[in-house]
Amino acid sequence: MDVDFGNALASVAVTGVSEASLERLDRRVGRAHERIAAGIEDRTFGYASLALPEETDPTEIRTALEGFDPEAVVTVGIGGSALGAKTVTEALGCAGHHTLDNVDPVETARLLEELPLESTLVNVVSRSGTTAETLSNFLVVREAMTEAGVEWTERTVVTTGDSGPLRDLADRHDLPTCSVPEGVPGRFSALSAVGLVPAAALGCDIEAVLEGGAEGRQSLSPSLFETPAYAYGAVAYALENRGATTNAFVPYAEALEPLSEWFAQLWAESLGKDGLGQTPVRALGATDQHSQLQLYRAGRKDKLVTLLRPREREDVPIPDTDVDELSYLGGETLGGLLDAEFEATEASLAAADQPNVRLEIDRIDAESVGQLLYELEAACILVGELSGIETFTQPAVEWGKRAARGLLGGGEFEEAEAVEGKTSRRVE
Amino acid sequence: MDVDFGNALASVAVTGVSEASLERLDRRVGRAHERIAAGIEDRTFGYASLALPEETDPTEIRTALEGFDPEAVVTVGIGGSALGAKTVTEALGCAGHHTLDNVDPVETARLLEELPLESTLVNVVSRSGTTAETLSNFLVVREAMTEAGVEWTERTVVTTGDSGPLRDLADRHDLPTCSVPEGVPGRFSALSAVGLVPAAALGCDIEAVLEGGAEGRQSLSPSLFETPAYAYGAVAYALENRGATTNAFVPYAEALEPLSEWFAQLWAESLGKDGLGQTPVRALGATDQHSQLQLYRAGRKDKLVTLLRPREREDVPIPDTDVDELSYLGGETLGGLLDAEFEATEASLAAADQPNVRLEIDRIDAESVGQLLYELEAACILVGELSGIETFTQPAVEWGKRAARGLLGGGEFEEAEAVEGKTSRRVE
Repeated sequence: MDVDFGNALASVAVTGVSEASLERLDRRVGRAHERIAAGIEDRTFGYASLALPEETDPTEIRTALEGFDPEAVVTVGIGGSALGAKTVTEALGCAGHHTLDNVDPVETARLLEELPLESTLVNVVSRSGTTAETLSNFLVVREAMTEAGVEWTERTVVTTGDSGPLRDLADRHDLPTCSVPEGVPGRFSALSAVGLVPAAALGCDIEAVLEGGAEGRQSLSPSLFETPAYAYGAVAYALENRGATTNAFVPYAEALEPLSEWFAQLWAESLGKDGLGQTPVRALGATDQHSQLQLYRAGRKDKLVTLLRPREREDVPIPDTDVDELSYLGGETLGGLLDAEFEATEASLAAADQPNVRLEIDRIDAESVGQLLYELEAACILVGELSGIETFTQPAVEWGKRAARGLLGGGEFEEAEAVEGKTSRRVE
Repeated sequence: MDVDFGNALASVAVTGVSEASLERLDRRVGRAHERIAAGIEDRTFGYASLALPEETDPTEIRTALEGFDPEAVVTVGIGGSALGAKTVTEALGCAGHHTLDNVDPVETARLLEELPLESTLVNVVSRSGTTAETLSNFLVVREAMTEAGVEWTERTVVTTGDSGPLRDLADRHDLPTCSVPEGVPGRFSALSAVGLVPAAALGCDIEAVLEGGAEGRQSLSPSLFETPAYAYGAVAYALENRGATTNAFVPYAEALEPLSEWFAQLWAESLGKDGLGQTPVRALGATDQHSQLQLYRAGRKDKLVTLLRPREREDVPIPDTDVDELSYLGGETLGGLLDAEFEATEASLAAADQPNVRLEIDRIDAESVGQLLYELEAACILVGELSGIETFTQPAVEWGKRAARGLLGGGEFEEAEAVEGKTSRRVE
């Protein structure tokens, strides 16, 4: 990706960062880069994520999928086990990928009714093999297939860790499997089997996604002024310290909408620690100009707005009209209108003293998307280094998991008792 | 809706609000209610929104739609002209509603290819009749229909103001029309033709939606302790003043996902003014427990988390399994699991000193959804009253509109020059 942080400079926006500050920060970026590079080299926990472009073997994925030519793929997974895969297939326009990444019974039932089960590939993803939501959905899907007379063992692929109930199940039924990579937290696993199986199953070019990731790897250097990923990370960090506790992430492309969701997990789960971390806000251009822009311009000065667009896209001409007030649109294209709105919004934020950063990719294709995912991960890891937090863990989610398990009779957990003791103050 | 703000009290969370403060605040709520009630009575600009359940005539909508029995409806509109309609159809499960609420050429082309144009109803919505995105998409859709041999004038319904290009067009081609209500900003128009045409065209019970709205109207009283809408608004306001500058809105139901988007516009565009306004964050339970919960528990103490669920839903049993570690799930239901996670998450937030509010509706049906929309609007209006801002305007979005128009050659605008003068600081 290319980064333009001109509108995040203190000379443009009062809550921006000065060039001089960034130059001082760059020394810390250099040291952070050394740690990151060593972590990649040694495949240290977490940092190993940035080694995925070389570690992931597309042949392993293709082999697991041999013999399948599904009309639809349903990924049964949640969080990092679903978002990367959804992001890749949506960005590449691989039609037919569905996700069961919630336990809403209405949605699960609806999807099972809609899917052509006899030509659907079920892609179950859970590192531990015990994720309650994923396993529950899988049990439901499996039963629905059996009831529909479809042999589920012939239509299921499993991506999991080296051991656990899903691994056992795969062994017992001789199911094709892929491995969740070692040392890579779920939200950093898009460039592994976790993120690539559905795209591969639907005929997309996962090799090019990995090549894009490898280019991202090549782009890392010890200076933010020479590394787009670090430029973005360092500016986000500097702005967070200057009060931008929110990061509104606004792609100007519908195909990148799941990327916002993926980014939101990456940012929130990695950086939301020790009372720190920007709150990621998912938005979409140009749509959210008619929803969020009022707030971004006139609300609190606590935001960084990240605007992302492809430089080229397939376009659609706007037909001429004889309506005077609209004649300026005739001869334009939808893409031209979208680009004008992108630049107008960016300038309108700057004019309101609202710092913003522009990210650009050449076009939305397999290679650029692979590189973009890689570089946003590197940006996030840099912010974690600069903030001095543990980027790769998510300890705060355990409390709720234990409580839920206790409530469902899955063991004695004191957290479940806290649920029973809730303070109520009802207005009905 | 029922509101439980027990977990937002200062006795539970350090950044919460005390009962004593709320009692003092209630006097201001009483005075605000007087202004709101008088505004509704007099149909004053903005407040007129809360009169829609009595003002909207479902027969006008049904008459405009006479003779149509579409397989699909495509709403061409943006912001408030699309979100309410999307929220209603999705919540009620009216299948077949699509929206063109962006000018992404790839998405517009994809949708036009997918839709059965000969049995699609085009629903164009713009109060002014000049919204660039909407009119551009409409020109493209119209041409696509003509190219497909479909007479667009026989498959188009228009919802617009009393005058403007869309009104002229409707007159010229004798198209069926509905009116955008007077005195009602787009984001408050869900309970008018703007929000109800697609649901009506797809056979849903819009009368029940309006009845729900009317119940919301009945529920308003001068005290927050007796009015769920005001309880939610007052607590949100009190928490914003205590540092909760973010409001994460988390329905535990996929069918309510567009409601989060609708809420985000309602909250951001109404309250994002004068350096105030909570930043709405769209999230979804249980999915985002595996994405955002780490941040909500361990990040900055600058959040209110709003948890919303239906008390009843169609459920799906989880089949038994012989896997020991998962046996506790057998005999449960997906809905039971979702509810356990809802309560576990709520308690886990409280245990981390993170204020949260529970909103509940009986079930997701036309009446509850109508009432919910109404009550959230009333809550928002109350926050605006308490904050002393102009809730019903959105002046900050004009700058960008002028800039974009200037860039596209639609006139001379100094804003367009500011776009050309952007400060660049690129890293590639």
